[in-house]
Amino acid sequence: MGLRPIGTIRTPWVTAADCPRNGRQPSPAPVCRVVIDDEFLPGLDGIDGFSHLILLYWLHQAGAARLVFRPPFDPVPRGVFATRGPARPNPIGLSVVAFDGRDEAGALLVRFLDCADGTPLLDVKPYLPSTDAEPDASMGWLAPHATERGK
Amino acid sequence: MGLRPIGTIRTPWVTAADCPRNGRQPSPAPVCRVVIDDEFLPGLDGIDGFSHLILLYWLHQAGAARLVFRPPFDPVPRGVFATRGPARPNPIGLSVVAFDGRDEAGALLVRFLDCADGTPLLDVKPYLPSTDAEPDASMGWLAPHATERGK
Repeated sequence: MGLRPIGTIRTPWVTAADCPRNGRQPSPAPVCRVVIDDEFLPGLDGIDGFSHLILLYWLHQAGAARLVFRPPFDPVPRGVFATRGPARPNPIGLSVVAFDGRDEAGALLVRFLDCADGTPLLDVKPYLPSTDAEPDASMGWLAPHATERGK
Repeated sequence: MGLRPIGTIRTPWVTAADCPRNGRQPSPAPVCRVVIDDEFLPGLDGIDGFSHLILLYWLHQAGAARLVFRPPFDPVPRGVFATRGPARPNPIGLSVVAFDGRDEAGALLVRFLDCADGTPLLDVKPYLPSTDAEPDASMGWLAPHATERGK
């Protein structure tokens, strides 16, 4: 079960410590560039017309997995699978991003990322509201900490 | 960038060919069991109270990546990153599932999976509507093929 990067994510945040708590926290959210390696560019055919994408990436700055830890904004220790923290057994990050098209170099222009600059990209998937949107989902212990939605 | 399974997904579908097109297609959707390996069980602390989860898993029955292919339900070849098909450069599957609690053995009970029985589980994340729900997202070429939502 080995992975290979398919590209690189460029963001304004140099280290994990610089990153916002989530991609909706900065307002306005900066436009980030997702640079796809040349060999994988044909895989983008047909991506125009989707307003949102799901990006999977390798959290290369995450330390060793911590199965239980105390989130920075909450006093109670939580299991890592009840958080979106980076120090996971398989440190794969996931962001739902707004897709603003491609620049002249072919990079994807997206908003609502929260990862560090240089993060290796693993996958791009089209966001499908028919299977991915649960606007009324309940957020368990994270409910009091929900980020308000910007645009 | 190596992965290790954290558990195993049990579904009614033996082979990839048996799987539904997506987890919302079967109506009613069967309840599936997500068995977490013992060493990772502490990571589930605090997961109760979330109505939905995001599961990442290794598409172990996917063949070699096909960057451009013709989806079974559409006549036009599409880039793999504009599809949710399994034959990806990094064959990581993603499902947003309804979380119905845990059984007496500690397995997660979920609905809306579409993967084969025995699929290795990579990650469990809480679903956060504040960052993950885009009910008005546009679906590009997939719009005419959208699955109607069941309950």
